[in-house]
Amino acid sequence: MPLKTRLTERLGLAHPVVSAPMAGAGGGALAAAVSAAGGLGLIGGGYGDAEWLEREFAAAGNQRVGCGFITWSMARAPALLDLALAHRPAALMLSFGDPRPFAGRIREARAMLVCQVQTMRHVREALEAGAEIIVAQGSEAGGHGARRATLTLVPEVADLLARESPQTLLLAAGGIADGRGLAAALMLGADGVLMGSRFWASREALVHPNLQAAAVAADGDHTVRTSTIDIARRLDWPKPFDIRVLVNGFVARWHGREAELAAAIEEEAPRYAAASASGDAEGAGIVVGEATGLIADVPPAGEIVTRIVAEAEALLARRAPAFVAPS
Amino acid sequence: MPLKTRLTERLGLAHPVVSAPMAGAGGGALAAAVSAAGGLGLIGGGYGDAEWLEREFAAAGNQRVGCGFITWSMARAPALLDLALAHRPAALMLSFGDPRPFAGRIREARAMLVCQVQTMRHVREALEAGAEIIVAQGSEAGGHGARRATLTLVPEVADLLARESPQTLLLAAGGIADGRGLAAALMLGADGVLMGSRFWASREALVHPNLQAAAVAADGDHTVRTSTIDIARRLDWPKPFDIRVLVNGFVARWHGREAELAAAIEEEAPRYAAASASGDAEGAGIVVGEATGLIADVPPAGEIVTRIVAEAEALLARRAPAFVAPS
Ligand SMILES: Cc1cc2nc3c(=O)[nH]c(=O)nc-3n(C[C@H](O)[C@H](O)[C@H](O)COP(=O)(O)O)c2cc1C
Ligand SMILES: Cc1cc2nc3c(=O)[nH]c(=O)nc-3n(C[C@H](O)[C@H](O)[C@H](O)COP(=O)(O)O)c2cc1C
Repeated sequence: MPLKTRLTERLGLAHPVVSAPMAGAGGGALAAAVSAAGGLGLIGGGYGDAEWLEREFAAAGNQRVGCGFITWSMARAPALLDLALAHRPAALMLSFGDPRPFAGRIREARAMLVCQVQTMRHVREALEAGAEIIVAQGSEAGGHGARRATLTLVPEVADLLARESPQTLLLAAGGIADGRGLAAALMLGADGVLMGSRFWASREALVHPNLQAAAVAADGDHTVRTSTIDIARRLDWPKPFDIRVLVNGFVARWHGREAELAAAIEEEAPRYAAASASGDAEGAGIVVGEATGLIADVPPAGEIVTRIVAEAEALLARRAPAFVAPS
Repeated sequence: MPLKTRLTERLGLAHPVVSAPMAGAGGGALAAAVSAAGGLGLIGGGYGDAEWLEREFAAAGNQRVGCGFITWSMARAPALLDLALAHRPAALMLSFGDPRPFAGRIREARAMLVCQVQTMRHVREALEAGAEIIVAQGSEAGGHGARRATLTLVPEVADLLARESPQTLLLAAGGIADGRGLAAALMLGADGVLMGSRFWASREALVHPNLQAAAVAADGDHTVRTSTIDIARRLDWPKPFDIRVLVNGFVARWHGREAELAAAIEEEAPRYAAASASGDAEGAGIVVGEATGLIADVPPAGEIVTRIVAEAEALLARRAPAFVAPS
């Protein structure tokens, strides 16, 4: 049975489930699989690499997909935005930086503007940019993010939108990996969810199986927000963002010793790159969120959509009303 | 209409709403008001002060209430536990420390043992102690806590309990302040909620109105986890705990400069104490969580219970099933 929300109606989806535009990990095959299952898949444009983008849009074939960028990085090579828009994405998501300079071109290309926000101040920027969809991302999320939690940020943003921009849609992101999280997000006032970690641990994700196996084995206590991964990649992330990853050998060694890592970077950067390339689960960055404690397998992405929606349906249609006792 | 869960049935409550045992702020009048409204109120035994405890149990009158302690602190003066148990509390909650040494006496006194946990490791200790109720507390909570988010911790604990101890009840705590949060918590697998910040901003709370007004005015971006408040109070909190408070003048001045605060403590401790006593909202600690962004008034505690339950009922009984489209 489909799950009906303002998101599914506005976008013509069967289910209110969007896959996160995960830099490196979220390619065309993953996005297409999510869209084929009735959600909306977003290609992870990330820091921006024209060749990669072209290849992954091609890999998505004829499926209707969207694309997302890390705004502060794309802003250094904005031609990438035009490249993506030329593929007529259903949605263009911007996160981690001011979306306002790019909103005009996205609107002209008739892509839906999606802005991911981490604070209430970000929401105001997104509204000024004319975002049609706002993704409220909590700190439990995998990948980059900030400090607010999904559970409080989503209803607080919902209240602001209800007052100031009721037609803007709202997605919840961060910590959602099963039907319980989807049902909870809808109760909090979201029109749907955007999930990263859960799809990172899917068959179609561009992720080394060793790293997926490490995440499947870990519980949710074993992630941390850190800047060590970005130092190792020589990425100059702006405040207030850092990245949530699994605590493995690399993170245990350097977290809290960032200055020393920076001092040893000539040696450590190539070592980190080699570990990432070879799928060394102790030396690479394993980019998942607290939801790793809810992830026990690496199925095809389409099966993830189907499973989560079925769980949420059962909770919403049967379990929820049963809590209200007849008078 | 009552909200029916395993918690309400096991404890004979009308509603699955428990007020947190807030040190200093949660006295007998607040606990009694919550219980009178159909929830369960817990007196905040906190660090332990026999005279305060006796007075607040007296203030609760004949209402059935519970009591909570900060475990590592109570462990230094365990006679306080006997004092509380002598009042035949419905429930005795332990948080922030190993509950196992105290479980036997609590069981003998026929109080229900409630353990608040912040990590999966804490859950195992709570189960070894024979906890009948586990409170999974996320980092968005006001007051002391740790790093996991409510949205992922609750379902992960629910999965562990389903496997290993299905009769143990589960409450969600951290970031819940309205019916959306309560409905979401039930969808995540909780049997009810424990709320602190929302009741801190109630008429019956033992909190200076200036501090409540500052919290009502703030949005959820303006809290932080810090150790500055504990340094100022000369409280030696164990790892991994710190305290979430509003960012006011005191916190803005000292957060990130903990060593300097410690060095200036002879001057700063009395200054902090004076600010707290006089309700100076820039100098005192304002102990609320991210839910402060969802709190807009300071009503009587009973009205909070009624309001939240009515909101949750509407969401669960009507809105939730409406998301599932007929096939
Ligand atoms: C491996 C990975 C890479 C990510 N890369 C990006 C990115 O390039 N751009 C972006 O906006 N968000 C990125 N994110 C964050 C997601 O957009 C989303 O907020 C997050 O995954 C939601 O939390 P969850 O991981 O708990 O589902 C990434 C997340 C993961 C797990
Ligand atoms: C003012 C205040 C004082 C608190 N004191 C205690 C305490 O003494 N013992 C305890 O176990 N928890 C204490 N807590 C934490 C609560 O038990 C609970 O986990 C928290 O309030 C839930 O998050 P919320 O504030 O978002 O509702 C306190 C919370 C607040 C807001």
